[in-house]
Amino acid sequence: MTRVFNFSAGPAALPESVLRQAADEMLDWHGSGMSVMEMSHRGREFISIHAEAESLLRELLAVPAGYKVLFLQGGALGENAFIPMNLLRGKTSIDFVNTGEWSKKSIKEARKYARANVVASAAETGFDRVPARDTWQLDPDAAYVHICSNETIGGVEYHWTPDTAGVPLVADMSSNLLSRPVDVSKYALIYGGAQKNIGPAGLTIVIVREDLLGQALPITPSVFDFKEQADNDSMLNTPPTYAIYMAGLVFNWIKAQGGLVAMEAHNRQKAALLYDFLDASKFFSSPVARADRSLMNVPFKLRDESLDAEFLKGAQARGMLQLKGHRSVGGMRASIYNAMPIEGVQALVAYLKEFEARHG
Amino acid sequence: MTRVFNFSAGPAALPESVLRQAADEMLDWHGSGMSVMEMSHRGREFISIHAEAESLLRELLAVPAGYKVLFLQGGALGENAFIPMNLLRGKTSIDFVNTGEWSKKSIKEARKYARANVVASAAETGFDRVPARDTWQLDPDAAYVHICSNETIGGVEYHWTPDTAGVPLVADMSSNLLSRPVDVSKYALIYGGAQKNIGPAGLTIVIVREDLLGQALPITPSVFDFKEQADNDSMLNTPPTYAIYMAGLVFNWIKAQGGLVAMEAHNRQKAALLYDFLDASKFFSSPVARADRSLMNVPFKLRDESLDAEFLKGAQARGMLQLKGHRSVGGMRASIYNAMPIEGVQALVAYLKEFEARHG
Repeated sequence: MTRVFNFSAGPAALPESVLRQAADEMLDWHGSGMSVMEMSHRGREFISIHAEAESLLRELLAVPAGYKVLFLQGGALGENAFIPMNLLRGKTSIDFVNTGEWSKKSIKEARKYARANVVASAAETGFDRVPARDTWQLDPDAAYVHICSNETIGGVEYHWTPDTAGVPLVADMSSNLLSRPVDVSKYALIYGGAQKNIGPAGLTIVIVREDLLGQALPITPSVFDFKEQADNDSMLNTPPTYAIYMAGLVFNWIKAQGGLVAMEAHNRQKAALLYDFLDASKFFSSPVARADRSLMNVPFKLRDESLDAEFLKGAQARGMLQLKGHRSVGGMRASIYNAMPIEGVQALVAYLKEFEARHG
Repeated sequence: MTRVFNFSAGPAALPESVLRQAADEMLDWHGSGMSVMEMSHRGREFISIHAEAESLLRELLAVPAGYKVLFLQGGALGENAFIPMNLLRGKTSIDFVNTGEWSKKSIKEARKYARANVVASAAETGFDRVPARDTWQLDPDAAYVHICSNETIGGVEYHWTPDTAGVPLVADMSSNLLSRPVDVSKYALIYGGAQKNIGPAGLTIVIVREDLLGQALPITPSVFDFKEQADNDSMLNTPPTYAIYMAGLVFNWIKAQGGLVAMEAHNRQKAALLYDFLDASKFFSSPVARADRSLMNVPFKLRDESLDAEFLKGAQARGMLQLKGHRSVGGMRASIYNAMPIEGVQALVAYLKEFEARHG
């Protein structure tokens, strides 16, 4: 067995020790005689797995009292519909900051349920940055302000938390949740698909201020009514049990690495290695403004894009997969989530150097 | 390692050979150097896994041309909202046959989006049967007629397919899909959560007549717009990749057992063993009308319910788990899905005999 360096944007690499434990426990979890997949979600075994996962997530993020942690399904794209349904609270509009593809998806979906005002956009500069806070034209009567804290495709990340002058702040953190500490108290709601830093696809995390719940639109499906799910510990119906179990293993792994402070240090080190090389290179370049570069998703371009295919072929031959950029933007992208070891980034930089020496 | 006999109603027992294969492939699927969980859903490895799962499901059920097979999230309870959103097609009412708890959930949820007419109900007899077809008062203008083909809690199953005189027929088959052959052509839509006969919780199957799609309500979330998902091969957003992989392994296992004809024979044999004992017993009994008894979920009662706890304790000591009936109906319930071997039912019947000899 040879494991590759998997630079996929998600679903993405998981810690090898987590996968080993999952394999070991597949037929018999802790002497129960069952796989976690086979357990009734109402049985004491799974209830303990679920409770531990939630408790670890609360501990890692230091989630304050007054917040509910929900384990749902449907992905971030699903939440783009369900968050308006749950959080409009009698209001009619939502403010959005548009930093790229995932912001646009959120805006499009929200328009089914409310007015979506784009209060700032980085469209003019090709979505290469986060619009400066002093350019945002916020509406104090908006139901909430929505941001995407890390654009998985564009590689643009907020390295600051916007002050929204009392209007609730909602963040799609799909691709940077658990990559570093977050002051949860500054957000009304944080959400994300699990398939980056958390676990398998099919689990969606929602962390929400409890006082905002209970006013969902009448059209809200019960399983996506946050209040109903909060009142039922995310078990109004059968939750994605195995994905929750895997997430719990990942949370334990993060804790064992030293928690989110250690994760951030590790992620900064990996990102610096790659960005420093790109900035020094005459052949490769980063399209993103320095202050807003993502620690998770690093898009880069070859000076001569006719060499893209050759570059990818050579990477694959060296055991480095999924470096092709998203089809909507082209170029390359290295996603270096928590589970990507520094050795993977070192191998990538060595290959970039080698490729530049040959073609630069 | 000792594996138990797991009579859970879902999530439920999976074939041991499937779990072994999943464990073996956990760190490296087919020499890819990745776990299936780590694969990009857009990569060729996962696309092949997804395509094979769909193709096997189509083969097992002999799905006719003109039907779309969707791999979604959100469970049957989610679909109870999304099916009205997708299938109302400008109509304003839906006809329901009420056979128990799951019918009631579907009715309640549909009322958010349409008039829900209960055209027949088994409430009067304690939901112990399927109302005879000649008592149903169908509305020819209803958007569709909804049935629950197997009530997981009540243990009532349709052993016939209703003729609905041209009105589209929708069936919640969560707990009997893949337990026996189905004439898909008689249904407009079949749906079910995976966690009974298919795979892990977190995957929801929808099989739908293509000509009914494309008229979803404007409030339909994109990820649950069947037309959008059908046009994107269920990959409008990241699907629950690992659950789809596991379902594919289960489909392969069913095929290797001889497909749905063999499954039905196996399931009839197991159910007969249990029901024959219950009917002969003076201590245990089945509350369900003979013609409508479920092959999957077998509720039964002890003559003296003060012995319920002792019965369950003894079962657990013998490695038979999850025999407690649903909290809404009490008593006992043995769920004997495809993956329950006949040895499990034999062991249960032996214990029932032993318990009756001691207490009868």
